[in-house]
Amino acid sequence: MRAVCVIGLGLIGGSVLRAAVRSGRRGWAATASEEDAAAARAAGYEVLPSTEEALDRAAAADALVVIATPLPAVGAVLRQVNRHAPTAWLTDVVSVQEPVLESVRESAPAARYAGGHPMAGTDRSGWDAGSAELFEGALWAVTIDGGTGLDAWREAAALALDCGALVVPASPAEHDAAVARISHLPHVLAAVLASVGGDGGPLAVSLAAGSFRDGTRVSSTDPDLVRAMTEGNRAALLDALDDALGRLGAARGSLASTGSLNSTLRSGHLARAGFEARGEHEPVRETVPLDAGHALRRLREIGEGGGRVVSLRGDTAVVELPPAPDDSSPEE
Amino acid sequence: MRAVCVIGLGLIGGSVLRAAVRSGRRGWAATASEEDAAAARAAGYEVLPSTEEALDRAAAADALVVIATPLPAVGAVLRQVNRHAPTAWLTDVVSVQEPVLESVRESAPAARYAGGHPMAGTDRSGWDAGSAELFEGALWAVTIDGGTGLDAWREAAALALDCGALVVPASPAEHDAAVARISHLPHVLAAVLASVGGDGGPLAVSLAAGSFRDGTRVSSTDPDLVRAMTEGNRAALLDALDDALGRLGAARGSLASTGSLNSTLRSGHLARAGFEARGEHEPVRETVPLDAGHALRRLREIGEGGGRVVSLRGDTAVVELPPAPDDSSPEE
Repeated sequence: MRAVCVIGLGLIGGSVLRAAVRSGRRGWAATASEEDAAAARAAGYEVLPSTEEALDRAAAADALVVIATPLPAVGAVLRQVNRHAPTAWLTDVVSVQEPVLESVRESAPAARYAGGHPMAGTDRSGWDAGSAELFEGALWAVTIDGGTGLDAWREAAALALDCGALVVPASPAEHDAAVARISHLPHVLAAVLASVGGDGGPLAVSLAAGSFRDGTRVSSTDPDLVRAMTEGNRAALLDALDDALGRLGAARGSLASTGSLNSTLRSGHLARAGFEARGEHEPVRETVPLDAGHALRRLREIGEGGGRVVSLRGDTAVVELPPAPDDSSPEE
Repeated sequence: MRAVCVIGLGLIGGSVLRAAVRSGRRGWAATASEEDAAAARAAGYEVLPSTEEALDRAAAADALVVIATPLPAVGAVLRQVNRHAPTAWLTDVVSVQEPVLESVRESAPAARYAGGHPMAGTDRSGWDAGSAELFEGALWAVTIDGGTGLDAWREAAALALDCGALVVPASPAEHDAAVARISHLPHVLAAVLASVGGDGGPLAVSLAAGSFRDGTRVSSTDPDLVRAMTEGNRAALLDALDDALGRLGAARGSLASTGSLNSTLRSGHLARAGFEARGEHEPVRETVPLDAGHALRRLREIGEGGGRVVSLRGDTAVVELPPAPDDSSPEE
């Protein structure tokens, strides 16, 4: 199994190091946080004194380098990769994909890179908040663009699978657009709802119950963590915000002019039903030969269709796809 | 204890009849739904063949009439009240307050009315969805406008307390404005989020996790029930929607121009913290003499301040108020 060199030991990086080592890989790390370094060492993990030394060892061992720093630190780490391990296997767990890809192209163009984003987390941060189990059963996007090599994609996907996750192949742009809608927009709408409710004063706050509690839950998260996540995905989030503003404005217009919220509420109910129906039907299993020329294109199609890679076996990927609507009889 | 005559035996009306009878009151009902009538009779409750007969008995017994129909049916019931029990004690559990109050003024002006709204419910409807325990520990707004008599307010509040609820005094307009923000707006925002997520296609739906699940949960509710609730509160909901559109537009503008969501996320985090802090500190208890001339004004102030009535004892109401910020030392 390929060794891993993790740069950054916060919640996600710290959990990757633990999960990778648990799966039988060799692993070491570096971090700018003395606190995280001390905690990881105390737990028996190897933390090198500097990113340079960690990368030198990665070059010698042909290890997979995992960038697990916040987005603003990625450029500096990539310039060190380019000096110390220029052709390393490389992935990341930063979250947003297009900005990281651009940075790789600019600063570490020879690295064998495929981006990654585990869809897991908690409201807490730092090494102590992590665990080897954080990714069990979670989805982990591993991205594919025109320049992605099949071997690099396999290395990143294999790490995700070893950590217990299921792999969703996607292009960086599609990934960023999707998470803007289902992960970043919810934070903005929750903040708006919390503020509009709070503006109602003590009577409104006093009467607030389940719908307000659920709709504002993610506003409990530290605003600085939410900023780092959402602001890094600015272009895609602006698109999602424009869609939301358009739909909310249409609801307002319809209520004002005709008194009806029918279209808004029915569309939302239908979309929520689609979300709830995920996984209700037995998925369709398929194997994708990874030695075929169009393997990466097929994997992207599978991700776009709501499918995921559940294992890699030799030269094939085992994937699960949602059943086509025609596959389910009306009785089911 | 005063007998109750409940018109409408859906989730809320059916639960009021059960809870009132459980508290030791006499109770009977009428409903336009043969299904609900049959189910209530099978459970041992007295359902009269018509609203007229139920109201005739209410007049003879000086009972409290509880209107528990959907808003569109309220006008017709009130015209029957005016013919069969014109000076009856009267309350409602319809939800929105100002439209019901206007209807009472127009169609049953001699009734001794104070409006009510129990903040309880489930996603299901009809007699079978109800229970005697539905209101245990719930809040129940009992409204006060310029024309509300203290005796009528006491009758409505006593029913709420007998059903196990805590009473929040409020003006009809303040009540409607508050629920627009904390109960109706969450439904519209959840529908918008669900639709924008669904528009992201199978990849977005596949990657959706906790923040999307929580933010869209109420979109599972039957859209017709949500329409009846939200569209009936049109004026107040339009105000809340305008606030939400303003805040969402400001977030979009800030992200586009400066790249920052700081103000949006911090405001939301602060408002959510205020919601979470409800009930963290020991409330301040107070008794309000109900024979004083300003009793209703004082009760409204208590509701506006986030307080509630926890019991009625002879000529006093026992109330609980959130502690003033100065009351809690920094160590607490």
